[in-house]
Amino acid sequence: MSRVPVNPPSGFRDFLPEEASARATLIQGITEIYLSHGFQAIGMPMLENLSTLQGKGGGADNEKLIFKVMKRGEELQRSLAAQEELADMGLRFDLTLPLARYYARFREQLPKPFKVFQIGPVWRADRPQKGRYREFFQCDVDIVGAKEIGAEVDCIAAILEVFQRFGLEGVEVHLNDRRLLSALASGLDSRAWGEALVTLDKLDKIGAEGVEKELREKLGAVPAGIQRILSQPDLASFRELDPESTSSLESILRLLSATGARAVFNPTLVRGQDYYTGTIFEVRHAELSGSLGGGGRYNRLLEIFGGTETPAFGGSIGFERLFLLLQEKGRLASISSGPEVFFPLFGEEMRSKVLELAAGLRKRGIRADVFPDAAKLKNQFKYADDRKIPFVALLGSDELTAGRIKIKDMDARTEEAVSLEEFFATMERLCRR
Amino acid sequence: MSRVPVNPPSGFRDFLPEEASARATLIQGITEIYLSHGFQAIGMPMLENLSTLQGKGGGADNEKLIFKVMKRGEELQRSLAAQEELADMGLRFDLTLPLARYYARFREQLPKPFKVFQIGPVWRADRPQKGRYREFFQCDVDIVGAKEIGAEVDCIAAILEVFQRFGLEGVEVHLNDRRLLSALASGLDSRAWGEALVTLDKLDKIGAEGVEKELREKLGAVPAGIQRILSQPDLASFRELDPESTSSLESILRLLSATGARAVFNPTLVRGQDYYTGTIFEVRHAELSGSLGGGGRYNRLLEIFGGTETPAFGGSIGFERLFLLLQEKGRLASISSGPEVFFPLFGEEMRSKVLELAAGLRKRGIRADVFPDAAKLKNQFKYADDRKIPFVALLGSDELTAGRIKIKDMDARTEEAVSLEEFFATMERLCRR
Repeated sequence: MSRVPVNPPSGFRDFLPEEASARATLIQGITEIYLSHGFQAIGMPMLENLSTLQGKGGGADNEKLIFKVMKRGEELQRSLAAQEELADMGLRFDLTLPLARYYARFREQLPKPFKVFQIGPVWRADRPQKGRYREFFQCDVDIVGAKEIGAEVDCIAAILEVFQRFGLEGVEVHLNDRRLLSALASGLDSRAWGEALVTLDKLDKIGAEGVEKELREKLGAVPAGIQRILSQPDLASFRELDPESTSSLESILRLLSATGARAVFNPTLVRGQDYYTGTIFEVRHAELSGSLGGGGRYNRLLEIFGGTETPAFGGSIGFERLFLLLQEKGRLASISSGPEVFFPLFGEEMRSKVLELAAGLRKRGIRADVFPDAAKLKNQFKYADDRKIPFVALLGSDELTAGRIKIKDMDARTEEAVSLEEFFATMERLCRR
Repeated sequence: MSRVPVNPPSGFRDFLPEEASARATLIQGITEIYLSHGFQAIGMPMLENLSTLQGKGGGADNEKLIFKVMKRGEELQRSLAAQEELADMGLRFDLTLPLARYYARFREQLPKPFKVFQIGPVWRADRPQKGRYREFFQCDVDIVGAKEIGAEVDCIAAILEVFQRFGLEGVEVHLNDRRLLSALASGLDSRAWGEALVTLDKLDKIGAEGVEKELREKLGAVPAGIQRILSQPDLASFRELDPESTSSLESILRLLSATGARAVFNPTLVRGQDYYTGTIFEVRHAELSGSLGGGGRYNRLLEIFGGTETPAFGGSIGFERLFLLLQEKGRLASISSGPEVFFPLFGEEMRSKVLELAAGLRKRGIRADVFPDAAKLKNQFKYADDRKIPFVALLGSDELTAGRIKIKDMDARTEEAVSLEEFFATMERLCRR
């Protein structure tokens, strides 16, 4: 037969069982924390109509990132002939825009405010490069329909709890407010100020001098607002300029610090998305150059789907970066979901009995695995080794005749024989100690 | 602003929170059962190279079902100009073909046999219709590298345990063997016999008479093998024709029956996929016309990715049909993952204290929710009602001064006041009773 390539598409990943289990452990941990804060699960498709993704919320930057799904059948033929758009759907590039659509559709049936979490894959047609993937997970929390800082504190606290739960130290949350940034525009028109902020957003990469150089090239001079930001003033110095966002940031900083978090004001924080209208935040870690997560207030995003202004705040954990960091630090290895007891199969005539014993263990909450073929014992033990199964239960024909079964403890390298009647109780004791 | 439509693409679904939680409950239950049988998690992308999906394993039937992802940038332009294929990737239409690719890629690093489970979405470009969706979940178990009936029994038993766990009665597993069907071809060439089986596969829809009519039209006569099958003979009558598959089916039936399952031989069972080489099965339920799951042995599928013949068996649960059936029977409502304690917010000055109390509950494993805005109390209580939160903890300024907090039991409609020191212990008692 002709051979088909075995690799996934460029920029996409397969995960070996150990890594897949560790990812599932992290997802489960994040889910539990989000639920413990009262966030609800929802369900949405992974594909959206192209018009939804291209709506004003997405912005032109995202347009290039969309993996488009081709029209089919006659419609494709018609579009080809008419030289129209050949795609009718696209893969979602984030979880926020679909949420806005969902909320607009169901708002009358949903609790107010609506506290929601989403954990799932998104896709971006970026050029593949190290550490940047075309399919990756996002873990979002959002509170739609809440206007005060309670939404900010709740979402950010839930996100910070994830890092805490997995023992990641040195996490710092940086806060700023888009209203404050707007207040600093002073003389500049919004287009020029927007460009100034795009440049400021590169501060981490090109440094203050780089920012000033680029601004002089783009705008002829460094705007006064940017100069003020680059001098890293403290929050109190902005009270007169914008009392509202200053006092909102002060409250958020105070409430987060009370939970033991390291929360700081960072006037240089911009965040890329253009739909933010108030508080913005980013989670940083000393050992990473980018961020571990972030988000902000988007009080006007929901308007693109109709209806009035709806206050909303949300944040996201960068799952892939967090996973890598936790893996490096060995924080995910602990919990095994592999079999606890392994039954080699000595012969076809033994199959019925070992299946019965394995089923009995499972009824008692013990994960049990039976080798499917009566293969060479050496291969069967290699399998148990490869999968690191802690106990092996041996039932040969001698044992069966005597009504007994041998139990090998693979770590302790000990062995005991018990009667078949005692087997379940013994395994419960050994596995649950 | 111009308004963007709020619906998902045609044939795709949104899920409200309650349904999304119930789906998560079912997925979690299936995961636990698959793990208890020793199946491992793996990770694969949702997209594959188009060539992988179009490989011989897919078959021409599947080609039409693929949602294709368009090439991008210059490559798209080049392909348009050259009138070549415009897509380079596609959404997976099942979980088996990607598994075959994965196994071919990693076989040297994987345990032998490789017991694997996958739960996730697949996509098919079917015409949308009631009960048929374009994005739906599959829940597969596979054992790659095992040739004896142990793989059959293990996979089918794990799948049947799911129905049992969720209290679904009246489930019946139907078994047949592709080798037996081949042995019945006798005089016919493989193309004609293949067409005869395609017609036989419609038995449930068009009845025996319909099958015979269609066969006379297609082949001029009803082949002897089909006549024999339609007479519903018992398994023993095939012993002489094909001793191997007969005795294999007998063993599987015996071992499955020993677990308490209703397992029957069904000579009319065909199953659509053309990659099956031995045992095939389908799970049926009296209240459904189609199947709740199924699968079979596919000893040659992995060859399309190179390497030698690799025995493999797998099965799948039709998640969407099972979910609907369990929902109808009220089997999924039980487990709530919603907040257990709700704190209304009486005023900004109370925020810091209620956040502290909520965090304290979460540390003790109790899910706690704080209203984010100091809104009208009526609206705050409506929220607690909508979300069916069992306890409400009231901390007004009087209570705070007195160092006490009121606890309302929303079901029992009782109220008690405790000191702030006693609060955590009281809530632990109330929530864990």
